Amino acid sequence: MLDPVIDPDRIDHHNRPLESRLAAGVEHLAGELDVAGHTSADQVIDALTEFSVAAPSWAVGTGGTRFGRFPLGGEPRTTEEKVDDVAALHTLTGSNDSISLHVPWDDPPDPAALRRHAAERGIRFDAMNSNTFQDNPSTTDDGRLTYKFGSLANTDPAVRRVAVDHNKYVIDLGVALGSTALTVWLADGINHPGQADHRDQFERVADGLRQIHDHLPADWLMYTEHKPYEPAFYATVNQDWGSSLLLAQAAGEKASCLVDLGHHLPNANIEQIVSRLAMVDRLGGFHFNDSKYGDDDLTSGSIKPFQLFLIFGELIRAGDGRLPSLAYMIDQSHNIKDPLEDLIQSTDAICIAYAQALVVDRAALAAAQIDNDAAGAQQVLQNAFRTDVRPLVAEARRRVGAAIDPMGAYRAVGYRAAAIERRGSTTVATGL
Amino acid sequence: MLDPVIDPDRIDHHNRPLESRLAAGVEHLAGELDVAGHTSADQVIDALTEFSVAAPSWAVGTGGTRFGRFPLGGEPRTTEEKVDDVAALHTLTGSNDSISLHVPWDDPPDPAALRRHAAERGIRFDAMNSNTFQDNPSTTDDGRLTYKFGSLANTDPAVRRVAVDHNKYVIDLGVALGSTALTVWLADGINHPGQADHRDQFERVADGLRQIHDHLPADWLMYTEHKPYEPAFYATVNQDWGSSLLLAQAAGEKASCLVDLGHHLPNANIEQIVSRLAMVDRLGGFHFNDSKYGDDDLTSGSIKPFQLFLIFGELIRAGDGRLPSLAYMIDQSHNIKDPLEDLIQSTDAICIAYAQALVVDRAALAAAQIDNDAAGAQQVLQNAFRTDVRPLVAEARRRVGAAIDPMGAYRAVGYRAAAIERRGSTTVATGL
Amino acid sequence: MLDPVIDPDRIDHHNRPLESRLAAGVEHLAGELDVAGHTSADQVIDALTEFSVAAPSWAVGTGGTRFGRFPLGGEPRTTEEKVDDVAALHTLTGSNDSISLHVPWDDPPDPAALRRHAAERGIRFDAMNSNTFQDNPSTTDDGRLTYKFGSLANTDPAVRRVAVDHNKYVIDLGVALGSTALTVWLADGINHPGQADHRDQFERVADGLRQIHDHLPADWLMYTEHKPYEPAFYATVNQDWGSSLLLAQAAGEKASCLVDLGHHLPNANIEQIVSRLAMVDRLGGFHFNDSKYGDDDLTSGSIKPFQLFLIFGELIRAGDGRLPSLAYMIDQSHNIKDPLEDLIQSTDAICIAYAQALVVDRAALAAAQIDNDAAGAQQVLQNAFRTDVRPLVAEARRRVGAAIDPMGAYRAVGYRAAAIERRGSTTVATGL
Amino acid sequence: MLDPVIDPDRIDHHNRPLESRLAAGVEHLAGELDVAGHTSADQVIDALTEFSVAAPSWAVGTGGTRFGRFPLGGEPRTTEEKVDDVAALHTLTGSNDSISLHVPWDDPPDPAALRRHAAERGIRFDAMNSNTFQDNPSTTDDGRLTYKFGSLANTDPAVRRVAVDHNKYVIDLGVALGSTALTVWLADGINHPGQADHRDQFERVADGLRQIHDHLPADWLMYTEHKPYEPAFYATVNQDWGSSLLLAQAAGEKASCLVDLGHHLPNANIEQIVSRLAMVDRLGGFHFNDSKYGDDDLTSGSIKPFQLFLIFGELIRAGDGRLPSLAYMIDQSHNIKDPLEDLIQSTDAICIAYAQALVVDRAALAAAQIDNDAAGAQQVLQNAFRTDVRPLVAEARRRVGAAIDPMGAYRAVGYRAAAIERRGSTTVATGL
Repeated sequence: MLDPVIDPDRIDHHNRPLESRLAAGVEHLAGELDVAGHTSADQVIDALTEFSVAAPSWAVGTGGTRFGRFPLGGEPRTTEEKVDDVAALHTLTGSNDSISLHVPWDDPPDPAALRRHAAERGIRFDAMNSNTFQDNPSTTDDGRLTYKFGSLANTDPAVRRVAVDHNKYVIDLGVALGSTALTVWLADGINHPGQADHRDQFERVADGLRQIHDHLPADWLMYTEHKPYEPAFYATVNQDWGSSLLLAQAAGEKASCLVDLGHHLPNANIEQIVSRLAMVDRLGGFHFNDSKYGDDDLTSGSIKPFQLFLIFGELIRAGDGRLPSLAYMIDQSHNIKDPLEDLIQSTDAICIAYAQALVVDRAALAAAQIDNDAAGAQQVLQNAFRTDVRPLVAEARRRVGAAIDPMGAYRAVGYRAAAIERRGSTTVATGL
Repeated sequence: MLDPVIDPDRIDHHNRPLESRLAAGVEHLAGELDVAGHTSADQVIDALTEFSVAAPSWAVGTGGTRFGRFPLGGEPRTTEEKVDDVAALHTLTGSNDSISLHVPWDDPPDPAALRRHAAERGIRFDAMNSNTFQDNPSTTDDGRLTYKFGSLANTDPAVRRVAVDHNKYVIDLGVALGSTALTVWLADGINHPGQADHRDQFERVADGLRQIHDHLPADWLMYTEHKPYEPAFYATVNQDWGSSLLLAQAAGEKASCLVDLGHHLPNANIEQIVSRLAMVDRLGGFHFNDSKYGDDDLTSGSIKPFQLFLIFGELIRAGDGRLPSLAYMIDQSHNIKDPLEDLIQSTDAICIAYAQALVVDRAALAAAQIDNDAAGAQQVLQNAFRTDVRPLVAEARRRVGAAIDPMGAYRAVGYRAAAIERRGSTTVATGL
Repeated sequence: MLDPVIDPDRIDHHNRPLESRLAAGVEHLAGELDVAGHTSADQVIDALTEFSVAAPSWAVGTGGTRFGRFPLGGEPRTTEEKVDDVAALHTLTGSNDSISLHVPWDDPPDPAALRRHAAERGIRFDAMNSNTFQDNPSTTDDGRLTYKFGSLANTDPAVRRVAVDHNKYVIDLGVALGSTALTVWLADGINHPGQADHRDQFERVADGLRQIHDHLPADWLMYTEHKPYEPAFYATVNQDWGSSLLLAQAAGEKASCLVDLGHHLPNANIEQIVSRLAMVDRLGGFHFNDSKYGDDDLTSGSIKPFQLFLIFGELIRAGDGRLPSLAYMIDQSHNIKDPLEDLIQSTDAICIAYAQALVVDRAALAAAQIDNDAAGAQQVLQNAFRTDVRPLVAEARRRVGAAIDPMGAYRAVGYRAAAIERRGSTTVATGL
Repeated sequence: MLDPVIDPDRIDHHNRPLESRLAAGVEHLAGELDVAGHTSADQVIDALTEFSVAAPSWAVGTGGTRFGRFPLGGEPRTTEEKVDDVAALHTLTGSNDSISLHVPWDDPPDPAALRRHAAERGIRFDAMNSNTFQDNPSTTDDGRLTYKFGSLANTDPAVRRVAVDHNKYVIDLGVALGSTALTVWLADGINHPGQADHRDQFERVADGLRQIHDHLPADWLMYTEHKPYEPAFYATVNQDWGSSLLLAQAAGEKASCLVDLGHHLPNANIEQIVSRLAMVDRLGGFHFNDSKYGDDDLTSGSIKPFQLFLIFGELIRAGDGRLPSLAYMIDQSHNIKDPLEDLIQSTDAICIAYAQALVVDRAALAAAQIDNDAAGAQQVLQNAFRTDVRPLVAEARRRVGAAIDPMGAYRAVGYRAAAIERRGSTTVATGL
């Protein structure tokens, strides 16, 4: 195999004993769907084969918290090795054909070479991410400046300038890599009441985003990403979708809002926020993950799978039956699991939620809504959610040559052990 | 039919066209479970046929909020009619063979007659509930006293006395009805810092519960039920499981803690609380419902179905593979749905969660836990949760003569229209 | 006295023994402020004498929860008597010279007479409130329609029409009373995922608000009021400031957003929301209250006084040193306190927060912000908040002839006993 | 000066110009308190002069989040230098005469020398903290084991053993330093449903705590510290006060519960938890800080000062008028402020809350409570909270030779600049 990427033959080998049971499962479910009559198994499978969710370069290494980090070994040492990990992931899932870089954690000396490296492995470059929440010589004027008190929101024009410049640099790098989008998540905010003026901060950020927006090539998009807290603990500048929308509007026409599922206050109705942003045509994309308390960055669908289903329901509603073409990315922190296993589980959960949303009887739902038949409408959604769509998701993988059971296959091929052998057991990938 | 209870023949009639598809579904799933090897379809079906969750007498009428109430008509006018509604429910679901009364909302002049009425319809009396959060001549010394400032926690010994007496009365009534348990949910608490002393309030409540406990017959149990807020908005006396445990311990050996799923602070890990109370042998039972924000009293399993599954997982863990014999009750407020439809959907969701928990590969889970294989353990739980167990739940219903599709059957038999005709369109059942 | 309004002589009588201590307190604080040099005591006192916060007609009666209501007696039986209670309140506080009506809870047969009644007592009519969350013959086409499934968001155009018509009626009534604003709080929302389409609901509400807006006289304003939940428990249409802003923009130029302090998700930074709405020129006003858990409607400033101070800080920032001319109203539910005592305490707390915000050293704050001196900025705010401004608030009252100690005076004059004697002990005012 | 500790002469020098204004402030407030009659200024000042709150060794360095850390320079390089910083702090505040160590962040090669070093500077050793949430050769058997999957809760008995051994080591070290208490905060928990069994984890932790407890000298105490999440994001073993109480009871008689103000679910009523733990005689102490969202570790009293006041109110209630002798510690993360400035502000806020609680008219409060006079009770508490007690706190400092204005004095003496000069600008203290 293109070491350490996984050889397709091994996938085939792993799939073979699972095929007959899968076929029976697909057949049974196809029959059930035919009886229901509103969606066919093939429609779902076709949609799934076209779906891909980007993997983040920073999440193929072990994640951590402020309390510590427990690396598991074999972590990628370079952006090329991160691409290799994503390529391995894609070989298994068939649904992760792109990688999202984070600069300067990723700052390739030879972008063209990196692009070739990725292309050879079938991986594209998804949205670029600019990092202005950490000090780094390359982003803080050789260490003469600091983002300690914010980047675009900083009171110091020199800091704002380097932050804007860094974003422009990231766009230029993205152009070289074939990316077409920039995600701007800012840690800007304050820890203490009074520390900064809410409005002044907002206006400085809006001004910076406008400058960055004006640097975008014609075919590029830009995403503003809100978050209520962390690392700022009293207020952030882009604290919720309301502010994110105002910032996107201020930045320009190519700007829209990115929704990270962990970036909300307790009990927030995220699916409704998705609907609102789609309504005003400023829904840009997603950072998928799951959480119980805050920005926990847990495996997608592992805590609130029904919410994930409802979000996909809103997307399909917004796309009038089809998934809109947005930026779909995973953004997680794999603190105690093998990151690739967690990405496999996340991709699987995302595909399951998507498939469940596809088997909603939309006509019946609309009819129940018109009639104020709350019980009936609930039944329609629950019927879809309770459907065991795993055979369809697995079949979609099989059809594109990926693994019927990607987790089993990953373990069977011994990818992690090979990575440790090749990269060492003490490597630490850049990221959180 | 024993009007307005539903005639079993009509159930049969409704089931017939659904039977072959159900049989195919059961067969497919049974095959899948046989391959997995750890649980058989029949084990699950058998467990489900033995399971019953009590319906609350106060939830067969339309619920409301402080902002209003929109009755739908045909509501039961008497406790007998509430029993009739529960009997109809049980005919459809096969899983609701008991009713939980709330006194003095229910205060039958002839308990023996009521008991016969219920027995004729196959309904038992589950835990009794005492109401000391509203003033009522029969509970407040003919209106000379008030629970405005608390019942058992009140600074006035006369109020505490009538509150204790009312609980004793409810026990005596329950004895006459064949019930064997008392649930004590208290609204006692405060709205304003300083209004009462936290410790004094607690000690007065503990003292009252002890007196009530001492009145329990030998075979009775008693449940303390915690809730963080509403109707008290600064502090409640029994605010969480910690206080509930201390109160149960203070009350006596027959007392244990009842967990209402809506009575928790945001983000609380309820399944872990279930584990803790089971560990110290003070888990008494449940009030099932679901919620997004507070004590929303929504349809069980309609917002967080995965949480409901995890709770049943903890129960089966506590029972070492079997559901422990506890008090399982629904406690919801049906504000905009037909209450019986909501109870059907809730019972269905509860049975589904139970069945999902039964198909967990417990040996594989234990092995993954020992190995710290977090991804593997997650996979085991998700495999169970993602299984479409609806055929098993429907088959369990079919085997006991209930409806394969209880919602469809309920609508087909026209129960609500008959109830409106019989009881009128403007009746208002007692309750919230 | 103009029974049961309080005779100014009695206030004088009550003030006299408190005057010398007050004078000493004012003198001490004036000295302290002179040393600080950025604000004078007289500036604060002058600002306070000009400040008024409207009392809600629905809050002079006892409030309740869905669990019950414990009336205290002497509640106003008519809107005239509600005006009397507010007039009594204003006599004591000097800061409540207007009343906010809620229609049809208040639906005066002779508006001109009511206006005269109020004018004689020195009371104006603040923003009108339309009630489309409860069914009432006068608002639901003689009971042929229902708001059970929403008003402006309803799928039934007939319901939407009566809801719009009712709002127009409320505007017309307000014109007759001399009011110049309409507050639209809608309970519209859903309890169950799928029950309605988020976007369709929003667009129907926006359309309705536009129609209502077009009925506004030239000098009127209109407020949209957001709330995340209750009575809808899965989603509301106007769930947060983001939606409220979109709705106000959709309605028209006279529409802006009203912030109720209890209508936010846990941990929301309300003062920042105030800043955002002021920034985009759509901050309309406030419903003051306090809360620990949800929309608890507790006494203003009784749970989070520092938050109230920070909100006033944002207002003074938005007004560049002065309080902007917005709609300031109290919206509380007085469940266990005498409503008038609670309104006295709330008004006092609001005035205190305002005064604290006025003694902030704004120049020092701005300097600390420019320097990223977080500790220094905090110190500036805390210095203001920790200042005991009660002498200034009491002195402002004294200067306008109100009570130095309004709570003491209220109790001393025996207002409640007189009201019970006059109105009876079992009256129940309309409201929640 | 005992470099870099602050010379008392410089304090005197700084105090002199502030003395007359302070005296006037004390006199005015003393007069006010005399009129009220229930507490005298001297009682408050005396209580304050006896009060001390420990500073944490890990908080004299810059704190950080998982997103980054921005050191400010001059951070202590050794535990000795941390002691020096605390000594400087104590010179300024007069209320921080002890330091709380965290092992192995602090692991002095010569404990006796360290103890002498501290004694010379007037600093004692408060509760010791054991760190088993990070891997460190000295605590994980030279790196052969890992706490990645827990310490006392680990399924591997070898890991549990080294965790117990490390705690014993910390006790022994504490004995050598003159400490008399051990605080055990565990990160043990899980990120993924199913990852571990809740009950098994609890029982393993209880067993470990028992072993540690049995190693305590006769005069020692031990504290269990709960936290709902972070770094574990699905469940922690000691998640709330209920579990903390069960663990303290399981550990033994010397164990009690420590309350960290940031370790609670949203909206938790912490003051009531304090009351509960005091009631069952298991309240051990505090980690003071403040937070808006989670364990934000912000400056004490900077977000919810009223809550801090209410907590001190419960303490004085528990001590029947006096502050109980518990472990009072600060536990904060100073991410963007100078840590010493933040500790000064925190200590000040804590002393202010304590003083406010001391000026509560406890007899009037008790009377209002008996009478269910909620408004009256609120007034009593608010009267105390609104009192500007800063003169008493400053006077208490002055009387023990500390700074009237500690923040001003700290800046005036140029402590940070001296520390940077002495220790360098790139030092990084151990800690979070």
